Amino acid sequence: MSHFTNALAEAASLTNAGMDRLLPLADGLEVQVLEAMRYSCFAGGKRLRPFLVLASADLFNVSRVCSERVAVAVEMVHTYSLIHDDLPAMDDDDLRRGKPTCHKKFDEATAILAGDGLISLAFEILASTATHQSAEIRAELILELARAIGAQGMVGGQMLDLVAENHDLDMSEITRLQRMKTGALINYACMSGAILGKANGAQRHGLSAYAHDLGLAFQIVDDLLDIEGLAKEMGKAVNKDEEAGKATFVSILGVERARDRAHILIEQSIKHLEIFGEKSKLLKDLADFVVQRRY
Amino acid sequence: MSHFTNALAEAASLTNAGMDRLLPLADGLEVQVLEAMRYSCFAGGKRLRPFLVLASADLFNVSRVCSERVAVAVEMVHTYSLIHDDLPAMDDDDLRRGKPTCHKKFDEATAILAGDGLISLAFEILASTATHQSAEIRAELILELARAIGAQGMVGGQMLDLVAENHDLDMSEITRLQRMKTGALINYACMSGAILGKANGAQRHGLSAYAHDLGLAFQIVDDLLDIEGLAKEMGKAVNKDEEAGKATFVSILGVERARDRAHILIEQSIKHLEIFGEKSKLLKDLADFVVQRRY
Repeated sequence: MSHFTNALAEAASLTNAGMDRLLPLADGLEVQVLEAMRYSCFAGGKRLRPFLVLASADLFNVSRVCSERVAVAVEMVHTYSLIHDDLPAMDDDDLRRGKPTCHKKFDEATAILAGDGLISLAFEILASTATHQSAEIRAELILELARAIGAQGMVGGQMLDLVAENHDLDMSEITRLQRMKTGALINYACMSGAILGKANGAQRHGLSAYAHDLGLAFQIVDDLLDIEGLAKEMGKAVNKDEEAGKATFVSILGVERARDRAHILIEQSIKHLEIFGEKSKLLKDLADFVVQRRY
Repeated sequence: MSHFTNALAEAASLTNAGMDRLLPLADGLEVQVLEAMRYSCFAGGKRLRPFLVLASADLFNVSRVCSERVAVAVEMVHTYSLIHDDLPAMDDDDLRRGKPTCHKKFDEATAILAGDGLISLAFEILASTATHQSAEIRAELILELARAIGAQGMVGGQMLDLVAENHDLDMSEITRLQRMKTGALINYACMSGAILGKANGAQRHGLSAYAHDLGLAFQIVDDLLDIEGLAKEMGKAVNKDEEAGKATFVSILGVERARDRAHILIEQSIKHLEIFGEKSKLLKDLADFVVQRRY
C-alpha cells in the first residue's frame, strides 16, 4: 500500500474507534435510537471528511487526541445528513453503500430521531474540554460547524436540491447548490484543522480554497459516477438524478467537459496547498484520489 | 395585569423580537426552509422556556442582552422538537396551537429540514461572542444544551415515548420518560441562567430541583388537560394518548391523585427557591401559573 492508502486506512480506523467510544449504548428502552445512530455510523463510508480533519490538523502538528474527536464529530454530522436525506419524504432511498438505509433497518421515526441525536452528539463532543483545553477554540469550532450545516449551509443546500426538481438550474445555481449541500461540510472539515492549529490568515485561505475546489470536483465525479451507472460499485440506486429530471454538472457540461473540469479543479486545489510545502502531501494525494475514484 | 402576567408578556415579546432578528430570510430558492423555520417559531406558544431562561438569569443580574439570546436558542430548540414530533412518522399531528403543523403548511421534507436548521441555528447563537464574552461560558451553555437534547435527553425521551406504545410503563418509567422528553429542556432553561450567572453549587442545585419538580407538574397538568378534552382551548387534537393506549400520569394515578400530585410538586418546587429569597418571586409565580393553566 502507498503512504496515502495507509493514511486513509489509519484515519478510518481512528474515526471508527472514536465513534465506538463516543456512541455508548444505554440500558433503557430508548436504546433503539442509539442502536440506529451506531448502525448508520458504522454502515461503511470512506471517512473522507475525518481524513480531511486529521490531515489538515496535522499541518499544524495538532495533537491527534484533539483532531480525532473533531473528525468523529464531523463524520457524525455527515451521517446525520445521509440518514435524513434518505428518508421517504426526501430522496427516498432504500439502500446506502449496499445496506438498508436507517429508516429501512429501523423505522422512519427512529431514523429522524437518530439524525437529531447525532447532531447534538457532534456539538456535545466539540464542546467538551477533552476536545481542546481552550474554550475559545471549542467555541470557534462550534460556531463554524453550526454555520456550515445550517439553513445557509448544508440544510439550505438540501432544500435547494429539493426545490431544484421544479426549476431548471443553470451552472452558477448548481455550483451554489453544491457549495451549500456538500461543500460547506468539506470546507469545515479542512477549516477545523486550521482552527485547532491556530492557523494564520494565509494558511486559512489556502485550506479554504483547497476545500472549495476539492468539494466541487468531488461532486462532479459523483455526478459522473451516477451517469456511468456503476450500480454495483456504488452500492446504491444510480442514475436517479437523470430519472428525476434534475440538472447536474454532467447534464449541463456533458461527460467530457465535466471530466475535464474535475481534473482542472483538482490541479487548482493542489496549487492552493503550496504554502504548506511537503507537509501537505497527503492532502494533495487525497485530491488525486477523489478525481480518480470509481465508487 | 399582575406583575407576573406582565413579566410573562414581556418575556414573550423579547423572545419574539430576538427570533425575528436572528431568523433572517435569504434571497435564494432555499428561502423555503427559512420560511418554515419562521412559520413554526411564530406559530404561538406561551414562551415558558424563554421565561425560565430570563427569570433564572435575572436572579444573578445577568445582562438581558445575553439572556435574551439564550432564551431564543432554547425556544428554537423547543420549536424544532415540536416540528419533528408532529411529523406523520412520529405523532402525526395536523394542528398545533390551532394552526397547521409545519409539514401541513409546507411539506414533510421542508419540515424535517426546518427542524434540522433550527438545531444548528440554536448552537450558532450560543457559540457567538454576542451571547457572552466568555468562551468558557459559551462552551458550557453549548455542552449542557447538547446533553439535554440528545439521545440521553430529549431525543431519547421521544424515542421512549414511541416505544412506550407497545409497553406498559409503570410510574417510574413514565417519570423517567417525562424527565427526558420535556424535563431536560425545562431544566436546561433554568440551568442556562445559572451558567450565565456563574451560580455557585447551592444555587445550581436549587434551580435544578425547582426545574425538576416544575417539569413533572407541567407534564401532569398536560395529561389532565388532555383527558379533560378542552379541544378548543388546546387548539390541537386531544385525548390522543388514551386513544393510542398510552400510559400517562393520569391513567396510572387517576384524575384526583394526579391533580394532587401536581399541586404537591409545585409546592415543593417553590421551596427549592428559598435560597434566592424575594428575587425568585417570578419563578414562584410561574410555578403557580403552570398548575393553574387551562391550556
